[in-house]
Amino acid sequence: MNTFGTNIRLTTFGESHGVAIGGVLDGFPANFAVDFAAISAALDRRAGRTDAVSGVSARAQHEADEIEWLSGIFEGKTLGTPIAFIIRNRDVRSKDYETLKDVYRPGHADYTYDLKYGIRDHRGGGRASARETAVRVVAGGLVQQWLGKQGVTINAVGEAGGDCGADDSVGGFVTCTISGLPAGVGEPIYDKVQARLAYAMLSINACKGFEYDEGFAVGRMLGSEVNKPVTESPVLGGITTGSGVPLRFRVVFKPTPSIAREQTTINASGEEVAIAIRGRHDRCVALRGSAIVEAMSALVIADFLL
Amino acid sequence: MNTFGTNIRLTTFGESHGVAIGGVLDGFPANFAVDFAAISAALDRRAGRTDAVSGVSARAQHEADEIEWLSGIFEGKTLGTPIAFIIRNRDVRSKDYETLKDVYRPGHADYTYDLKYGIRDHRGGGRASARETAVRVVAGGLVQQWLGKQGVTINAVGEAGGDCGADDSVGGFVTCTISGLPAGVGEPIYDKVQARLAYAMLSINACKGFEYDEGFAVGRMLGSEVNKPVTESPVLGGITTGSGVPLRFRVVFKPTPSIAREQTTINASGEEVAIAIRGRHDRCVALRGSAIVEAMSALVIADFLL
Amino acid sequence: MNTFGTNIRLTTFGESHGVAIGGVLDGFPANFAVDFAAISAALDRRAGRTDAVSGVSARAQHEADEIEWLSGIFEGKTLGTPIAFIIRNRDVRSKDYETLKDVYRPGHADYTYDLKYGIRDHRGGGRASARETAVRVVAGGLVQQWLGKQGVTINAVGEAGGDCGADDSVGGFVTCTISGLPAGVGEPIYDKVQARLAYAMLSINACKGFEYDEGFAVGRMLGSEVNKPVTESPVLGGITTGSGVPLRFRVVFKPTPSIAREQTTINASGEEVAIAIRGRHDRCVALRGSAIVEAMSALVIADFLL
Amino acid sequence: MNTFGTNIRLTTFGESHGVAIGGVLDGFPANFAVDFAAISAALDRRAGRTDAVSGVSARAQHEADEIEWLSGIFEGKTLGTPIAFIIRNRDVRSKDYETLKDVYRPGHADYTYDLKYGIRDHRGGGRASARETAVRVVAGGLVQQWLGKQGVTINAVGEAGGDCGADDSVGGFVTCTISGLPAGVGEPIYDKVQARLAYAMLSINACKGFEYDEGFAVGRMLGSEVNKPVTESPVLGGITTGSGVPLRFRVVFKPTPSIAREQTTINASGEEVAIAIRGRHDRCVALRGSAIVEAMSALVIADFLL
Repeated sequence: MNTFGTNIRLTTFGESHGVAIGGVLDGFPANFAVDFAAISAALDRRAGRTDAVSGVSARAQHEADEIEWLSGIFEGKTLGTPIAFIIRNRDVRSKDYETLKDVYRPGHADYTYDLKYGIRDHRGGGRASARETAVRVVAGGLVQQWLGKQGVTINAVGEAGGDCGADDSVGGFVTCTISGLPAGVGEPIYDKVQARLAYAMLSINACKGFEYDEGFAVGRMLGSEVNKPVTESPVLGGITTGSGVPLRFRVVFKPTPSIAREQTTINASGEEVAIAIRGRHDRCVALRGSAIVEAMSALVIADFLL
Repeated sequence: MNTFGTNIRLTTFGESHGVAIGGVLDGFPANFAVDFAAISAALDRRAGRTDAVSGVSARAQHEADEIEWLSGIFEGKTLGTPIAFIIRNRDVRSKDYETLKDVYRPGHADYTYDLKYGIRDHRGGGRASARETAVRVVAGGLVQQWLGKQGVTINAVGEAGGDCGADDSVGGFVTCTISGLPAGVGEPIYDKVQARLAYAMLSINACKGFEYDEGFAVGRMLGSEVNKPVTESPVLGGITTGSGVPLRFRVVFKPTPSIAREQTTINASGEEVAIAIRGRHDRCVALRGSAIVEAMSALVIADFLL
Repeated sequence: MNTFGTNIRLTTFGESHGVAIGGVLDGFPANFAVDFAAISAALDRRAGRTDAVSGVSARAQHEADEIEWLSGIFEGKTLGTPIAFIIRNRDVRSKDYETLKDVYRPGHADYTYDLKYGIRDHRGGGRASARETAVRVVAGGLVQQWLGKQGVTINAVGEAGGDCGADDSVGGFVTCTISGLPAGVGEPIYDKVQARLAYAMLSINACKGFEYDEGFAVGRMLGSEVNKPVTESPVLGGITTGSGVPLRFRVVFKPTPSIAREQTTINASGEEVAIAIRGRHDRCVALRGSAIVEAMSALVIADFLL
Repeated sequence: MNTFGTNIRLTTFGESHGVAIGGVLDGFPANFAVDFAAISAALDRRAGRTDAVSGVSARAQHEADEIEWLSGIFEGKTLGTPIAFIIRNRDVRSKDYETLKDVYRPGHADYTYDLKYGIRDHRGGGRASARETAVRVVAGGLVQQWLGKQGVTINAVGEAGGDCGADDSVGGFVTCTISGLPAGVGEPIYDKVQARLAYAMLSINACKGFEYDEGFAVGRMLGSEVNKPVTESPVLGGITTGSGVPLRFRVVFKPTPSIAREQTTINASGEEVAIAIRGRHDRCVALRGSAIVEAMSALVIADFLL
């Protein structure tokens, strides 16, 4: 379902080329003065891209991303009621997508949505488009502000895995540091803090892996090398220690599958067809992915704290 | 909370040295003839270990793990009602743990449970003990039987990350292959199949990372290298394609923190104390971890299918 | 929280005098052709009222209730993705409410919202306004269409408990009949079909009671009088029999507390003040409440069927 | 599903003539000293009955109801981990039920369980037996102890609707008073305190209706008669006022359908057969139903407070 979280819940909606995308954030504390500019800045950071098909520039894209707040905020303060907001989709040349109507792009969700629902808004990925992450960034940005007031800061940094100036797209990594966590964040047995973070990260399009602390390197280490004093461990048994040592994790993103090079795929009749995706590409999604990683981390941590 | 899943839900309970550990599996289909021997075999596979403190041998340990079925099964068949079962804890020398009463073992949850709850069953890890995974294996084993009848097979293989005969514990990896998945498994936007699997895996004690498909390697690859034909992709947009290509993922486990070498830690008064954990150790948890990975995978996949 | 349902979930938002009210309906089946006129008709039926304070007429009120569909519907058919919609709030003289800013109306939620959240949109009830039921009617109306295609019809009839032409407001009853239910609707032990219906009904503003079958009359009857043949019982053990006998229940609504007669209440400083609520009143909420009862019943039944 | 609650969750299991019935209570606060005798007393109060078929006396029945605590309690105090307990089913002459194997008793769930699951433990109602309420009473009794420490008391009183000495069973009522509720209990819009209570009550076998405050009488009253000062209203907008006025509600129970008089019913082949249920009957379930109403009320209120 399209709801994330338990105590603070984000419900999202919208296709990339429908009327609007948006979200409902329920459970946010009352009486909080919202910094709208900070949220727009997070949205800017995420939007450092061009649309793969239409070639609309990053700046124009951003200009389109105006947040319309619908409820839950009164005279600049939250009411404790659901905070709803939408971002309207401007016409980014829907007809450019006509050629993709019956063609399944490799590495995209076109095929599985058609299989699962028997119907699909084919214009630019529809519901499965990365555009939906803008909604995560708005809601997560709001939650991050609240966390800041509780002394919790989240900082994610993206790193390309290769040459971003290359002809083709490249993968990358995002490293995230969460500081100021109090003791007791995380619930036994299943809702360990790392389990909820992993779930949140793997729910992001293009994310292929999650590791925390020493991560995969730990598989080749000895117990005597790994064991840390209790007071230097950020998490033990899935629960934060409040030790002051930040919680760190890392995720990997695959290169965007929208590439100019001609590829072979299938159409709705199951026939093999050639496809070359026009327009400029997002060379490395990991760079702007950091905004999304921060947003999702904020939703996870706040869900434990509230 | 101690419940895993939505459509089929496992609720677990029990401390490692209390009366019993056990679980309630709710939502399991009715009229299914249970293969009790197969479940005991899965439990055997998981139990290839010795208790770190008491030194009770693997065989004795196993003999203690008799499953008592309490409800939901009538004349060998499931009723569609909750299936409850318990495994009694035999006396594995609780008094051996007296010395650990006020000491927090490094890498264990002793410290965080005391912080979070202000009380703790200190005997062998209590609720946070790896013993709780026996319950996951029983329930997951039952679910795996049902999946098998639907044509879905799950196979996990453990691999030590170093010399298992060493003096000290070593990390390791488990690779899991899920074959026979129909199309449409996974839900947009958050409950992508990989997101639920990552959550399940990181909920296992000692697990430090999850990756699927090419995993972390993808971070250094180009789009042209990663893109696969639609018909060769097991998952697209978080939803299975039903392509026949198995879904593969890999997890990493840290070495068990219970080691003989003397370590420095703190006690309940915050004082530094030395600790050396007696008894024989589980050299590499990844080896028996494969049974747990299979069990949790089964719970995740069945939750989508039911 | 502001989400109703499990398999099909309605998340609602909006204050009565904010920008808009609206909802997100998640889990609705794909490929369903929506009859928009029928939904507007349900909204009409609910809107047979005037605003207690502003005196805006029923017709004008209705004209304001235009549904803006934002997502989940493409070329008239549902996509299987979340269906979001909003109804904008027209300016119904917010300043008329200035006098109510610090006064708690008897029988309304003003006082408890202030206590719970420390902040409140005082204009006309804010989130607690009966206006939110318009969102239930839109979503429920859509679900009712789908149920109709499955052969399930829901029919609720309102009845005033006294003279609707009186000077003052009067209570009333709504009787609801659900026909065409298949066997097996309802889940043991807690999600009995009558338990979910009772929950849904008591979540409606002003509802004070729920009874089904013979209801409260059964308390004075003998077993031999109550027992019905299995084939004539619509529900047994919380599960529908599919017998063809409709499921019937009845709810009671209190008279609207907004009355012209002067009443004594308290203000935010805890002082006693007199209050007389201006404008025309809704004499009997039960009459238009039938649309809401149908909508909520539809959400409950569809949640079991999906 | 067989789980009740969100923040404090009771998961129950067990058929009336299987190995055991039991429950897992998750989310109960840590470090609470349990009064085991009080829980046994609540169980006594509920158990004032004889088994309809076997005729085992109330006293013998009670003797069978020994609670075996499995987890979550250490040295008499709760650990904050799941509290699991079972009550074993003694042999109450299962073979007495052989004649009911293929016959569907009127007013019982035999028929719908067979329809829904295609299999049924026919011995005495199986999962649908009123015996499962013993589990509710144990868990609810524990929660009620905790509520008492928070100053919240719950008191339910049963009343027969007719002559309990009659030849036949009779319906009845339970009136429940909840005192000491703090302000703010109840969540908009759907989880109003009365909505959760109604859900809880209608989940009890034989319950046919719920009303609170003036209940159904309000349908014939005028606004001027119903409106109460804010400070005398226990609940406004679904949220408690903390006014000191107790919250009152009333439920109705039908007479037990197990009666000695011969009735006509159907068997599994759909043929009409005569049935007369042997043994002594519970004349009025409402009398012992009060223990169950208290238990469920406690679970609802604690779920809001935790």
